[in-house]
Amino acid sequence: MLLPQTHNHAQPNFLNTADLKQEEISALIDLALDIKQGKVKKSLAGKTLATLFFNPSVRTRVSFATAMFKLGGQAIEISSNNVWSFEYQDDVVMDGSTIEHVKEVAPVLSRYCDGLAIRCSELVTKSAQSASSGSWEESKQDIVLNSFAKYATVPVINMESNVYHPCQGLGDALTMKEHFGETRGKKYVHTWAYHPKALPMATTNSQMLAACDLGMDVVIAHPQGWELDPEILAVAQKRAIQSGGSFAISNDQDEAIEGADIVCAKSWGALPYYGNWEAEKEARSNLQHWIVNEEKMARTRDGKFMHCLPVRRNVEVTQGVLDSTSSIVIDEAENRMWAQMALLATLLA
Amino acid sequence: MLLPQTHNHAQPNFLNTADLKQEEISALIDLALDIKQGKVKKSLAGKTLATLFFNPSVRTRVSFATAMFKLGGQAIEISSNNVWSFEYQDDVVMDGSTIEHVKEVAPVLSRYCDGLAIRCSELVTKSAQSASSGSWEESKQDIVLNSFAKYATVPVINMESNVYHPCQGLGDALTMKEHFGETRGKKYVHTWAYHPKALPMATTNSQMLAACDLGMDVVIAHPQGWELDPEILAVAQKRAIQSGGSFAISNDQDEAIEGADIVCAKSWGALPYYGNWEAEKEARSNLQHWIVNEEKMARTRDGKFMHCLPVRRNVEVTQGVLDSTSSIVIDEAENRMWAQMALLATLLA
Amino acid sequence: MLLPQTHNHAQPNFLNTADLKQEEISALIDLALDIKQGKVKKSLAGKTLATLFFNPSVRTRVSFATAMFKLGGQAIEISSNNVWSFEYQDDVVMDGSTIEHVKEVAPVLSRYCDGLAIRCSELVTKSAQSASSGSWEESKQDIVLNSFAKYATVPVINMESNVYHPCQGLGDALTMKEHFGETRGKKYVHTWAYHPKALPMATTNSQMLAACDLGMDVVIAHPQGWELDPEILAVAQKRAIQSGGSFAISNDQDEAIEGADIVCAKSWGALPYYGNWEAEKEARSNLQHWIVNEEKMARTRDGKFMHCLPVRRNVEVTQGVLDSTSSIVIDEAENRMWAQMALLATLLA
Repeated sequence: MLLPQTHNHAQPNFLNTADLKQEEISALIDLALDIKQGKVKKSLAGKTLATLFFNPSVRTRVSFATAMFKLGGQAIEISSNNVWSFEYQDDVVMDGSTIEHVKEVAPVLSRYCDGLAIRCSELVTKSAQSASSGSWEESKQDIVLNSFAKYATVPVINMESNVYHPCQGLGDALTMKEHFGETRGKKYVHTWAYHPKALPMATTNSQMLAACDLGMDVVIAHPQGWELDPEILAVAQKRAIQSGGSFAISNDQDEAIEGADIVCAKSWGALPYYGNWEAEKEARSNLQHWIVNEEKMARTRDGKFMHCLPVRRNVEVTQGVLDSTSSIVIDEAENRMWAQMALLATLLA
Repeated sequence: MLLPQTHNHAQPNFLNTADLKQEEISALIDLALDIKQGKVKKSLAGKTLATLFFNPSVRTRVSFATAMFKLGGQAIEISSNNVWSFEYQDDVVMDGSTIEHVKEVAPVLSRYCDGLAIRCSELVTKSAQSASSGSWEESKQDIVLNSFAKYATVPVINMESNVYHPCQGLGDALTMKEHFGETRGKKYVHTWAYHPKALPMATTNSQMLAACDLGMDVVIAHPQGWELDPEILAVAQKRAIQSGGSFAISNDQDEAIEGADIVCAKSWGALPYYGNWEAEKEARSNLQHWIVNEEKMARTRDGKFMHCLPVRRNVEVTQGVLDSTSSIVIDEAENRMWAQMALLATLLA
Repeated sequence: MLLPQTHNHAQPNFLNTADLKQEEISALIDLALDIKQGKVKKSLAGKTLATLFFNPSVRTRVSFATAMFKLGGQAIEISSNNVWSFEYQDDVVMDGSTIEHVKEVAPVLSRYCDGLAIRCSELVTKSAQSASSGSWEESKQDIVLNSFAKYATVPVINMESNVYHPCQGLGDALTMKEHFGETRGKKYVHTWAYHPKALPMATTNSQMLAACDLGMDVVIAHPQGWELDPEILAVAQKRAIQSGGSFAISNDQDEAIEGADIVCAKSWGALPYYGNWEAEKEARSNLQHWIVNEEKMARTRDGKFMHCLPVRRNVEVTQGVLDSTSSIVIDEAENRMWAQMALLATLLA
């Protein structure tokens, strides 16, 4: 069902929702709803998924492990302390610190397992530093993820790369479809939030795309200087229009939130400072008012609050909002599992 | 079957055997015996247990993994290197080192898994230091375990906290029931043992309670200064009497062991020195004669030797005793698995 | 089917292929071929294998996990960060850094699991240093592996010790049997390769034995000073003759490779420098021409290239060879899984 990606082999992957047709995404969400409601039983009996974590994870790890197990399969975790220091460059004389090339490890794992899932966000890992110089243009190439996708002979799933976190996007889409039924005409506000650390923008990119694919009226709110990648914005806008929605950007959080049906908060590091995080931190220091609180939620149209978690209470959002009935963050986290079950059942069947 | 604990939600937990009625404990032991003898097949097909290890473990980890697997389910391990630095305090502005609040992580894991099992002994972990100042009064609150129990929406199992190790207690009860059939009238001696390190007293508290609930004639032997927590002693004594047994404390190991049917050895750190372990070590240095050896076992009534393991050979007990037929430490360790199968089958069914 | 090893208990182990009769090895290979071709379904439903990794691993870990899962069982990993510091010496007063004796941990794990698999290569681990002084004579005793085999009460599998890596040998034998059908009369060249680090010789010992047991014409090529252990060479030669093959040693890589059907490359540290690796490194520094390249492969009889992986591209072998159709390293890695399935189905049934 998922179409082959633009790689020199035939198997389908799940690297980024924007690689999929919107009807493919809808089909995945409908399948996830059916699985969650127990309407369909899909089986991956005897199938295994190798989950490679270059970065630690709780939510993604447990939700993939349970997703595979509920389908009759098994996730086999390879975490950073197991992961060798892999080589990704061509034509290298490997007499240094990297001890195995992705050209070997990807096909070998493909012989053992029915799928590979990769988490590699270079901003937060060291294991993969060798793969990137640290500039955004470099990071944007997602060398680790795309190298595995290139050399694997089984489907590859992106569990969060430098640029995208499509499983989060799929889970959020499921959550909003489940909550609203019809998502067209609903106002979705994705707002930057203050955070003590500079975080990757992969999750924001995928959450934004999910809302666009649902044909919602999407508003991205962030301080000046925290603009997202223009290429990714262009794709998001295009898909929003195609889906019958709209797309806008605002630098005024209060104004943006006005009349929102969904307020989704996420922090990310400013691109102009990419790799120069001390300077970014200083620029960020006077933005602590970018927090979602009860006053701001009062401006919404009985809006719901979403966040990918983990969340810093009373920093990104007040506990008053998190502990209120308007927060659906726990449902949102649960739906990661159901969305991934639909994805795995489709991709590994 | 297990009754709800005193928490603001309905699901039953297994935090401490003293929270259970004695008939509930008997029912668990009888079920464990039936499962071990293959008389009953319980099924947890498709169910998962998240096992959170803030401290490393071999025995507990493998016995829970096999227990779940033998029942058709799966244990999903989250070990300290995966565990985020969680926040347990209310009303905190989370701009420091803790990156996720138990108010989020406990309900989220409850959506993925059918039960949560927690090992957090602050005396031996750093991951959870933030949860306690290090005083016994603080540690006794078992903030990590009780926070998960409070915010989880599925059963929570104590895999060893600061205060109790009820799965060890249950396994020991199964071992003694299996060995003696009728445990009333049998003399159970729980003796402190010398050890190069100050150890938690959680295991001793639960082993002592297990013997009391079996109506045995319980004697606790330890040097002066190594008294157990008075509140816990009071509960143990009460339950011993209720069960038709007796309860006594001795500072003379030889005398205590006289005529024993069971000699169970365990070391623990002295409460008066809690948090001040250098001083405790010095006070402990002249207590190396608190070792169970062949001479002392000769004073028993063909008594059996028990220990929770891991054990320091020729420090806590001589190899002569461990390698003799009077040692039942391997059966005791095996019974952890069968007891936990009964517990899981009851709690997660 | 596998016969009991020379231990004081009855269960069969898989510590080294040379402990097996050659018909036992043939039977394992035939079973592996049948399982791979789906001709036979063996079941280990409900059975568990404890896999203890004193050294990190990707290939071995994933191939054992999938092997157990495909057979209906489960592998339970205990990696170095979980593994306690175990004691292996007798009659020790355990008041130091080791906290549990193999005399307890091996029988306890035997009660929980249906088999134990051990990886412990002291050259690359610290966890097990206490088990050896670091001399080859010491290391050759494989104290960790043999202690587990001695005290376990279930089958023990060697996942790579100081001396042997028999699962690699079995996988290689399967690969060559699959490729050639009849292996007698085929020339097998096992050549030392340059590597920036001194590596263990366990894999070479087992790969060499595999070719000998297949009755191939075996040539071992290495620089002077890199001689293998004479006792192990004697066993290999004996088994080669018994199987209708031949056995020779050469210090000239080009000459050795002449007319080869298989060229298998592997690096190892020189025995004369064992434990004195700085000196070994210096002696190795002028051996960088010991690399398998296209010119050398051109001397073969349409020979195939094998390597256990991980491989250093353009150091041990050129990428030209690895990326050519003469390389069968990925098939070789895959066959680890099928060979281990045959082994597990036989040993744990």
